[in-house]
Amino acid sequence: MHLRELGEFGLIDRIKDGALANPDGVIVGIGDDAAVYRPEAGLYQLLTTDMLVESVHFLLDKTTPWQLGYKAIAVNLSDIAAMGGRPRHAVVSVGLPERLPVEFVIDLYAGMKEICREYAVNIVGGDTVSSPSGLVINVAVTGEVSPAGLLTRSGSNPGDLVVVTGTLGDSACGLDLLQTPGWEEHEFAWPLVTAHLTPRPEVDTGLRLAGWGASSADDISDGLASEAHELAKAGGVGIRIYADRIPLSPQLLKASALLKRRPIDYALYGGEDFELVFTIPADKFARIAFKGGLTVVGEVTAREDGVMLVARGAATPLEPRGYNHFR
Amino acid sequence: MHLRELGEFGLIDRIKDGALANPDGVIVGIGDDAAVYRPEAGLYQLLTTDMLVESVHFLLDKTTPWQLGYKAIAVNLSDIAAMGGRPRHAVVSVGLPERLPVEFVIDLYAGMKEICREYAVNIVGGDTVSSPSGLVINVAVTGEVSPAGLLTRSGSNPGDLVVVTGTLGDSACGLDLLQTPGWEEHEFAWPLVTAHLTPRPEVDTGLRLAGWGASSADDISDGLASEAHELAKAGGVGIRIYADRIPLSPQLLKASALLKRRPIDYALYGGEDFELVFTIPADKFARIAFKGGLTVVGEVTAREDGVMLVARGAATPLEPRGYNHFR
Repeated sequence: MHLRELGEFGLIDRIKDGALANPDGVIVGIGDDAAVYRPEAGLYQLLTTDMLVESVHFLLDKTTPWQLGYKAIAVNLSDIAAMGGRPRHAVVSVGLPERLPVEFVIDLYAGMKEICREYAVNIVGGDTVSSPSGLVINVAVTGEVSPAGLLTRSGSNPGDLVVVTGTLGDSACGLDLLQTPGWEEHEFAWPLVTAHLTPRPEVDTGLRLAGWGASSADDISDGLASEAHELAKAGGVGIRIYADRIPLSPQLLKASALLKRRPIDYALYGGEDFELVFTIPADKFARIAFKGGLTVVGEVTAREDGVMLVARGAATPLEPRGYNHFR
Repeated sequence: MHLRELGEFGLIDRIKDGALANPDGVIVGIGDDAAVYRPEAGLYQLLTTDMLVESVHFLLDKTTPWQLGYKAIAVNLSDIAAMGGRPRHAVVSVGLPERLPVEFVIDLYAGMKEICREYAVNIVGGDTVSSPSGLVINVAVTGEVSPAGLLTRSGSNPGDLVVVTGTLGDSACGLDLLQTPGWEEHEFAWPLVTAHLTPRPEVDTGLRLAGWGASSADDISDGLASEAHELAKAGGVGIRIYADRIPLSPQLLKASALLKRRPIDYALYGGEDFELVFTIPADKFARIAFKGGLTVVGEVTAREDGVMLVARGAATPLEPRGYNHFR
């Protein structure tokens, strides 16, 4: 069936079911002029939004609609995680080319509902409009955070350690693999492609950061180099990243050899990892260093020291190149 | 200057200034992973979103960027008004064709900031991405409402009056005029075109509705016929609209004669008026009937009576045709 047959209101009826993963506190969900929800007393509200545009953020022959829906929510949850918050409610706008079959749109929302179920997030409203050219998806997500649990990009101090979650570069390498014919034959390629198509935001870690004593945080959406510059600029500090400390997955090393690229370039300049990078005083980190999945990659320095990459004993300025729209 | 020269981060720096019209309660605005704000204790939070797509919702040769920015916010504030709420914070996503000059984007945001200033709304964040084809704007707006002040589309009872604010049909007629060469020569055309390009959401009236005793409300975005059906469906009631009661502006009557269209068709099926329609018990309305700008256009009936239009003494089913995407 095509959208033209079902119509806008028929489509909304098909989307509504299963949109609330955590209905407690939701007064009005999909179907009125605006959603209504009860905020938790004493908490700050968080709000973030991200737009995904066909041909810029995704290619329809490289992703399933389910994966695309999953990712459209994931990138927003990652922003809430980077503030130390718990994501709560989402509104979803889709600009749909009329050529799309209804099943595509249903699968798109199924992917959204899956990640919303995993993270207990409600889809409480949205907008469904036609788009004459490409598919456009915009998601806005609210979250909640206690004043003491809030982490921004500023707040770091010289001497703090710079720590990242997970491994970096997998997603960007996965994107390159997707454009490499025959990638499916390599076992190592699958987790990288998965990291690119259905990233898992670090919400649980984000919720713990402030309690551990972290001083600032950011999610890694544009590559570690770009985020290091953001943390340095916002905190009024310098940052020094040690190239040989950056956590790289064994799959990334294998795939980089295949693609004849330097694995560290994916980590520094690749983007879309949706891991977290945070700063934390060394004595505070000592108490959590035993936890898995956290890697010290550098340290905070004085502002005048700039943002540097230390490789083979030599420090050179780390360029903030990552993805920049319009460039 | 073109976007390519300024880049994404340079553009964000240009947009940031003057984004907070009501900074009280804003902890973190534009420039971090998510916005942070303190909700008013005891109030419900509202959340709505609307996407405007070039060639579907607007034509760049019929609107200035300033007007377009103004309207992109207005349509969202109207949704908050229809819930009885006060709009508070907005996040704005723009998908920008690279061909657009930087000045276009600055003017677009200037229009947004103007209406935000008028309604004391903050722009607290957003996303700026490139769009390979048309311009896309998505706005999500939060609001606040006391539990007692909340109005939904349900809640009406047979016997309630159906009341609208302002005059209807002006915006849709303005859209037709915009496509009529020489419209600028007619003095009556200007307020209609203005109603279409820079609608003023009925926030102040929305805030008073619950106190007056209104039982349900909706904003008139798709024409009175479509909204009457929405109120009837949500309330489990019927609705009867009296054609000769619908408030039409003198300008609409003149322009309709020029365009050889029936003025009431603009009011019933035209859309984008962003006035409010609400239901209210007759005794409650009696206390506010002296106020200007409110017109009784019909009454709530039993569900089995359906949604009817009474014209020249005869009642006929009122078709829910308004704008339907994909149809």
